[in-house]
Amino acid sequence: VLAQLQNAPCLRIPLKDGFALPENFAELAEGANIAMLARPNAPTGNSFPKKDVERLCASFKGIVLIDEAYVDFAEDDCVDFVKRFPNAIISRTFSKSRSLAGLRFGYALANERIIEGMMKVKDSYNVNYLTQRLALASLKAPAYLAATVAKVKASREKLAEELRKLGFKVEPSQTNFLFAAPPSGDGKAFFLALRERKILVRYFPGPRTGTYVRITVGTPEQMDAFVAAAKSALKA
Amino acid sequence: VLAQLQNAPCLRIPLKDGFALPENFAELAEGANIAMLARPNAPTGNSFPKKDVERLCASFKGIVLIDEAYVDFAEDDCVDFVKRFPNAIISRTFSKSRSLAGLRFGYALANERIIEGMMKVKDSYNVNYLTQRLALASLKAPAYLAATVAKVKASREKLAEELRKLGFKVEPSQTNFLFAAPPSGDGKAFFLALRERKILVRYFPGPRTGTYVRITVGTPEQMDAFVAAAKSALKA
Repeated sequence: VLAQLQNAPCLRIPLKDGFALPENFAELAEGANIAMLARPNAPTGNSFPKKDVERLCASFKGIVLIDEAYVDFAEDDCVDFVKRFPNAIISRTFSKSRSLAGLRFGYALANERIIEGMMKVKDSYNVNYLTQRLALASLKAPAYLAATVAKVKASREKLAEELRKLGFKVEPSQTNFLFAAPPSGDGKAFFLALRERKILVRYFPGPRTGTYVRITVGTPEQMDAFVAAAKSALKA
Repeated sequence: VLAQLQNAPCLRIPLKDGFALPENFAELAEGANIAMLARPNAPTGNSFPKKDVERLCASFKGIVLIDEAYVDFAEDDCVDFVKRFPNAIISRTFSKSRSLAGLRFGYALANERIIEGMMKVKDSYNVNYLTQRLALASLKAPAYLAATVAKVKASREKLAEELRKLGFKVEPSQTNFLFAAPPSGDGKAFFLALRERKILVRYFPGPRTGTYVRITVGTPEQMDAFVAAAKSALKA
């Protein structure tokens, strides 16, 4: 959206089968100033092998922005890239694992030269006082974060198992959601059937994504309600 | 700052003697997309006759942005311009009269067409949840605002009187600060003498502004401390 506002051309690079990063990403993106990817990815939920992102950073001429919004639910991160690649930026948010979406607080990690450039175009007072204080309070409560993440991961694995039993194709997830395709392969029909049952999931139209829905992992009670609705929807 | 970031040329239009708006403002700004002014003005503290701003709105081809940051301390406002001039934008802030500078919350008033244009380039979630709730709470407490403003205005007038007795040239103020020139006409020396006495005011270098300092109106106790320090500084 921000690129469009500046009339900056945007090029979409499709993932390969299995939602994998194309080996020739750097080549496909040649000439661009920034290559962006989310790791773990959204809405598919999978992560990319670290060496694939490494290869991109090493071979791409511009900035590589790695959005780690869901990293706290993942098995590893790319934070070491900041010291290893002068063109890597890691972005993170307090909106997911820290349950602070209302705060609109995020941050970037990159080498000094990149951060200096970002500071030059940063608006004054871009993070207000309360947000600063609350973000700091969150950083000082690592045990709460760890407990939340552990609960979400446990619920995620339980849900994945239940969905697979029901015949869903469930993508491996390193996030707080599951990307799951109903047995019919009709994501939209399943989304609509769930909506009738007052359960909202996300549906992404498209030849590949359209066979899935994205299910955010909630509390155990919410997941029980979801599974009951999913069973009812499959029967209907 | 934001205009510079976009490489947009900026033209400064000097005020006339007595910090008045030039009659030919529209002519001087011809070709610009936006003409900006603060009413009441900062750091001088005076307001401009409404008819002068009216004339500007009527004759200028582009947008006229009237920053009313200090309007709650003023005798009148330009809010009626929003319905009368298709090119007028009023901007306001919760950082001054509402004592919520840490919130970084402001808003604009303009006709529907202008607001629609602003919405097109607005970032997503640009005002976080807590800020929205606190700004609403402030709007629902008009008595607190009125009491604060009354106290500031009373302190401002008392301070102006004391400064005039001490030989200062005090500009008429419709804000929460006074723009006052010490008898010496040397704003910088007075600023430095106050700083030695642990009192911080603002000094703005320049042929006209440099003869003044800007004194923010604080609590009565703070103003007593300021006057004592000012007397001591004048003697030194």
